[in-house]
Amino acid sequence: MARIVMKFGGTSVADMDRIRNVARHVKREVDAGHEVAVVVSAMSGKTNELVAWTRDASPMHDAREYDAVVASGEQVTSGLLALALQNIGINARSWQGWQIPIKTDNAHGAARILEIDGSELIRRFGEGQVAVIAGFQGLGPDNRIATLGRGGSDTSAVAIAAAIKADRCDIYTDVDGVYTTDPRIEPKAKRLKKIAFEEMLEMASLGAKVLQVRSVELAMVFKVRTFVRSSFDDPDAPGMGDFLNPPGTLICDEEEILEQEVVTGIAYAKDEAQISLRRLADRPGVSAAIFGPLAESHINVDMIVQNISEDGSKTDMTFTVPSTDVDKALKVLNDSKDKIGFDVIQNESGLVKVSVIGIGMRSHAGVAASAFRALAEKGINIKAITTSEIKISILIDGAYAELAVRTLHSVYGLDKS
Amino acid sequence: MARIVMKFGGTSVADMDRIRNVARHVKREVDAGHEVAVVVSAMSGKTNELVAWTRDASPMHDAREYDAVVASGEQVTSGLLALALQNIGINARSWQGWQIPIKTDNAHGAARILEIDGSELIRRFGEGQVAVIAGFQGLGPDNRIATLGRGGSDTSAVAIAAAIKADRCDIYTDVDGVYTTDPRIEPKAKRLKKIAFEEMLEMASLGAKVLQVRSVELAMVFKVRTFVRSSFDDPDAPGMGDFLNPPGTLICDEEEILEQEVVTGIAYAKDEAQISLRRLADRPGVSAAIFGPLAESHINVDMIVQNISEDGSKTDMTFTVPSTDVDKALKVLNDSKDKIGFDVIQNESGLVKVSVIGIGMRSHAGVAASAFRALAEKGINIKAITTSEIKISILIDGAYAELAVRTLHSVYGLDKS
Repeated sequence: MARIVMKFGGTSVADMDRIRNVARHVKREVDAGHEVAVVVSAMSGKTNELVAWTRDASPMHDAREYDAVVASGEQVTSGLLALALQNIGINARSWQGWQIPIKTDNAHGAARILEIDGSELIRRFGEGQVAVIAGFQGLGPDNRIATLGRGGSDTSAVAIAAAIKADRCDIYTDVDGVYTTDPRIEPKAKRLKKIAFEEMLEMASLGAKVLQVRSVELAMVFKVRTFVRSSFDDPDAPGMGDFLNPPGTLICDEEEILEQEVVTGIAYAKDEAQISLRRLADRPGVSAAIFGPLAESHINVDMIVQNISEDGSKTDMTFTVPSTDVDKALKVLNDSKDKIGFDVIQNESGLVKVSVIGIGMRSHAGVAASAFRALAEKGINIKAITTSEIKISILIDGAYAELAVRTLHSVYGLDKS
Repeated sequence: MARIVMKFGGTSVADMDRIRNVARHVKREVDAGHEVAVVVSAMSGKTNELVAWTRDASPMHDAREYDAVVASGEQVTSGLLALALQNIGINARSWQGWQIPIKTDNAHGAARILEIDGSELIRRFGEGQVAVIAGFQGLGPDNRIATLGRGGSDTSAVAIAAAIKADRCDIYTDVDGVYTTDPRIEPKAKRLKKIAFEEMLEMASLGAKVLQVRSVELAMVFKVRTFVRSSFDDPDAPGMGDFLNPPGTLICDEEEILEQEVVTGIAYAKDEAQISLRRLADRPGVSAAIFGPLAESHINVDMIVQNISEDGSKTDMTFTVPSTDVDKALKVLNDSKDKIGFDVIQNESGLVKVSVIGIGMRSHAGVAASAFRALAEKGINIKAITTSEIKISILIDGAYAELAVRTLHSVYGLDKS
């Protein structure tokens, strides 16, 4: 007997047939004797519809009203799933964020979970009741509904798993796990059996859109073993209820991964743009003068490279921003031109950042060199490089994105079984 | 300066354009210096959609889950209206039933309001804030959402008006008031300026579907002056903001109606059926033996007529039920045949009950006689009659429904201005 959190996203609860299918997944785990909390998103498309209405009602919307409107989507699916479970003989009830309560801070629309009181849920597990919990929401200190931001149901699930000390948090989604790279680009991509939290965090933030980044951060902090698996699999197929080894990818502490590969996966992020400031005065405070105003304008800066000038008096500063933010960034920088003191500003859009990720890199030299050599052999020009302990990110022309992903996937042997 | 509750039904908040129109109605009252609480229904059609989903999920549904799902419709419109108000410069916030709270009993799906704490709403009126309240719902003793049953938003509005001691409760709907009879049957029907609570109760329960019966009961008990008016009128047309004499019908205490007409209106209820039990033993307890089992089966019995037999040993009992309940009623009665002891059972469907309503009847004789004479002149046969202090109900063949309504409307001079 174990305690499991099962989370189902919008495509998994898109209509009543899909919700009945979810109920069968839940029944399988209940029949196996497990205590189960289910976290649900809104029906796919519903949140977009509600968001569009709030924008139509008021372009400068009050985030508290936005939350009241948008959170209704999960309220509906939680009630419907509880009913569908009751209909197949399972004792279940729905829980809204304010009922548990899931206490959040006051940042409506992008709230953070502060505290979850899991005691009543646990007491009811003892009575054989399944908890069906509306994801994406909690109760703010103002006694109003606060939503966690888009994709927040993953975060709800992991936070609840931590609060009720679940043995496992299963994230059911429309893909069947985490792959070594995007299978639409590299058909030889392999599903990973396990991936370490740190690696998943890099994969998630670098563009592999399986899990919300915050949910992975939370899972890492609270060491919540998290499975990514498909809700479209037949709920009663062989092996689906295998507790130790279900189909899907386990995101876990690196200590659980015995035979660590050097490289775990290749991620990419499209629509990057590069901005270069030429012939800056190379003096203390110049970085602050550039990146302070950009941060204040909520522009996400990535991949900063500074070339030190020969005589030490002038320098070049190059960095990337999302393509959608280029115009805004250029305006901010030009407005601060006198303060920063650059000579000329250049920019290039349509770039892509390809990243090689693996915890094994820490103890293996030459990983970066292999990447550079392989890309050079294909004639791919590297525009910028940044590295961390467990990843190497390379900025290239967007036209070479797929070729670069396939090249790197192959060079580290990820296409071999 | 007054305190006003404004209630808008489903067709009045059917889409964002309609919601913006509602915001203009609210702005008019706010600009006039009034303190305003707004109660909203779900978008028209939305509640039906949600109800259908719950039935699909589980035919024998758990009313608590039904409530969680169905109450989401009003949550959405309350948030959207608050946003639309903010967008035209009005300080407004949405309130869910559980936030105020509107405390109800535990009868999920058909809950009754027990208590409303209006203190925080009133405090915020002092800060110039409009309260936008989700209708149709409250918080049960189990800390779960409880809905008041279909049409419950009228009841929410009147209950809130009583709790905050509002000067007036305006029910905005898709008709512009209460008429002397159904204008689709009698085009000469006139809109009433005023109608007494007791009369409106008879009109509402007898088939004039303008207001939910419970809301009128509540208005009568708490003496809430209630206006029925149209949300489709131009919010800024002349006279719309007239506090003493707005367009629409005022439902009020009879003392407020100085020149009371003898008859106020003609109501009708279609699809009635008559059941007769012939040659019953005329002994104490026979009525209980008949109507007890029917009540237990939730069959609404109306218009009971008992003919006393000549020798006192046998009697006939005749009563009406809704046509949809005839088969169920016949089964219940036949199952109890030995206990009741009747000889034969007869039934007739497709009947209609036409009612003449007016508080002035109390002090005027001959009102019933006029009705019987007028119907006889048109060759309409009367199948049963029941009377109360302020109404006469007559059961006739359904084919004569429109003719009877027009005849009675004319005989009491209601078609004269």
